[in-house]
Amino acid sequence: MLHAVIMAGGSGTRFWPKSRRDRPKQLLRLYGDRSMLQQTVDRIAPIVPHDRVFVITGADQAGAVRDQLPEIPAVNVVAEPCPRDTAACVGLAARRIHRLDPHATMIVMPADHMIKPADRFLRTVLAAAEVIEADPQSFVTFGIVPTRPETGYGYIERGEPIGEPRGVPMHAVVQFREKPDRATAEAFIASGRFFWNSGIFVWRAKTILDALAEHRPELARGLEKIGAAIGTVDEQKVLTSIFPTLERIPIDKAVMEKAKGVKVLEVVYDWNDVGDWRALKELQPPDSDGNILQGKVYAVDTTNAIVVNDDDGLIATLGLDDLVIVRSGGATLIARKDKLDHLKKLVEGLDQAGFGEML
Amino acid sequence: MLHAVIMAGGSGTRFWPKSRRDRPKQLLRLYGDRSMLQQTVDRIAPIVPHDRVFVITGADQAGAVRDQLPEIPAVNVVAEPCPRDTAACVGLAARRIHRLDPHATMIVMPADHMIKPADRFLRTVLAAAEVIEADPQSFVTFGIVPTRPETGYGYIERGEPIGEPRGVPMHAVVQFREKPDRATAEAFIASGRFFWNSGIFVWRAKTILDALAEHRPELARGLEKIGAAIGTVDEQKVLTSIFPTLERIPIDKAVMEKAKGVKVLEVVYDWNDVGDWRALKELQPPDSDGNILQGKVYAVDTTNAIVVNDDDGLIATLGLDDLVIVRSGGATLIARKDKLDHLKKLVEGLDQAGFGEML
Repeated sequence: MLHAVIMAGGSGTRFWPKSRRDRPKQLLRLYGDRSMLQQTVDRIAPIVPHDRVFVITGADQAGAVRDQLPEIPAVNVVAEPCPRDTAACVGLAARRIHRLDPHATMIVMPADHMIKPADRFLRTVLAAAEVIEADPQSFVTFGIVPTRPETGYGYIERGEPIGEPRGVPMHAVVQFREKPDRATAEAFIASGRFFWNSGIFVWRAKTILDALAEHRPELARGLEKIGAAIGTVDEQKVLTSIFPTLERIPIDKAVMEKAKGVKVLEVVYDWNDVGDWRALKELQPPDSDGNILQGKVYAVDTTNAIVVNDDDGLIATLGLDDLVIVRSGGATLIARKDKLDHLKKLVEGLDQAGFGEML
Repeated sequence: MLHAVIMAGGSGTRFWPKSRRDRPKQLLRLYGDRSMLQQTVDRIAPIVPHDRVFVITGADQAGAVRDQLPEIPAVNVVAEPCPRDTAACVGLAARRIHRLDPHATMIVMPADHMIKPADRFLRTVLAAAEVIEADPQSFVTFGIVPTRPETGYGYIERGEPIGEPRGVPMHAVVQFREKPDRATAEAFIASGRFFWNSGIFVWRAKTILDALAEHRPELARGLEKIGAAIGTVDEQKVLTSIFPTLERIPIDKAVMEKAKGVKVLEVVYDWNDVGDWRALKELQPPDSDGNILQGKVYAVDTTNAIVVNDDDGLIATLGLDDLVIVRSGGATLIARKDKLDHLKKLVEGLDQAGFGEML
């Protein structure tokens, strides 16, 4: 049976001041009436019922996650005692799911990506499940056709075409590549053989656990101990003591780079990782001045601006271009769009500057 | 005896959102602990006791003025029923003062100029009083040596030097000129014969009333009726019915352009009319990045910015140059410095945009 694992970690710096430590991106309503996490659950719901949806999140955020998802059993919201990267996260989920259904197939996906339309996404997921059904040992990843030489994403090099399940083009995978430098990214794009790694994976729970045991035996042993305690009185104690000792490594590097039989589906839907405020233009069409305005905003002689006002007061702008302005929870950010890459640095500096209550 | 008349009108648009309709520039603490109005009273206090200080203000603002100046007799704070420009304002004050002291000399000055140091200002005022003492028919104005071809000020062309009372250079006045265009302003500067008109005048109350009667007889008749009612039960009724009918004309144009025996003192103090937020750099020295920051502000990679935060929350800036950012009373303005000339337009548009409560 198909299970869904939603990875909902994140430190909440890229959408500051709307995102905070206890309110990271995936819990925000950046567009529409539902948070990105809620939209992720809604999207998969037609093929994965709520009791087979698992959310892995941080201890700080588990309460808010349960509040946002009353339809998901509370026990399915798993709080990591501390962040340990995606191999430990995926392994933790696989242990739980394997215990419930030894033949389970699981889709692993981030909580904070914009994906539309939902029906095309579901077609891709069902295609992946079909591939796993036919060959339970396979690893399926979702690749995005790149539109620019982005240095912030991992890449997947595709090999031979190996079919088109449900009309979704599929290739063998030659290699996974971590975030490249600019020249390498340009060469990737020019070759026409690379996808962006979307961070969505489909596999049997047993397959990924076996692969972790093969390639990362120590990490797998830790996960096994945590798994053995699930449902016992010691469950939380074991998790709290062992999880923080697990190796910090991404699942791509721990397993995917070494595994055999990895396949990549070329996604047939629109995708955006909503990296920072600039991504808002993909979610809400700008007005005729190129502006995206939310809340009480009065813009004069202002172009290509993103102005989000979550608070009660007014934001008035005069003679601006290419700025991002966000007021939320009593803090206001004003930044040049092309400097937003440094927002993390700004947020990290707040504590030392005496504004820790704004984190 | 010397009396002081402080003109404290103003619509409160140039320092929005800190200035509002009922809280114009002169009532704000833009720097230091006292408002500009309070500083104006403090500055003249060594030579004009509080009971000889008169403040002419708008009906909306009289309450706030009295609150800020508990040391001034409440009856000396005169509320104009509506703004009628400076000839009516000066005439109204002169009527009151002449009634108390037929030989009174009065200094008329704006409430919202930065002047320092105070002792040099007082020396200039005493020089003017001395000139009036010697020739009670004269009109004395204060001229500022211009530093740029400003098109926003009136100018005074000087004639022959006619002495140096208390060490302050004095000239006869050839003509008053209203705000010039750019080319004219440049010619004024190049000639070396022009001062900026500082809006400070010294004369006998009787002299200015006689001059109004000569050059603006209708306006003078209206003022006479208002003056006759002072101290009677009809005082307020007469003021309210007649004042709005008075001609709207600046005192420069009504009298000074036509009067004989006008003298200009070249001021020996630092002066700034604090025209808008950009003037803050004259009042508070910028830091090493060229920034002026007030209140809770965290600036990263930000230069030549003015950031004033009167409210509780935080303002964080990233990658900005040459911006003005002000949060006050629940409204935030973000403007490019070189667009501040259009702030009035923005403020005037607020009402129609549904943000009238922010005016």
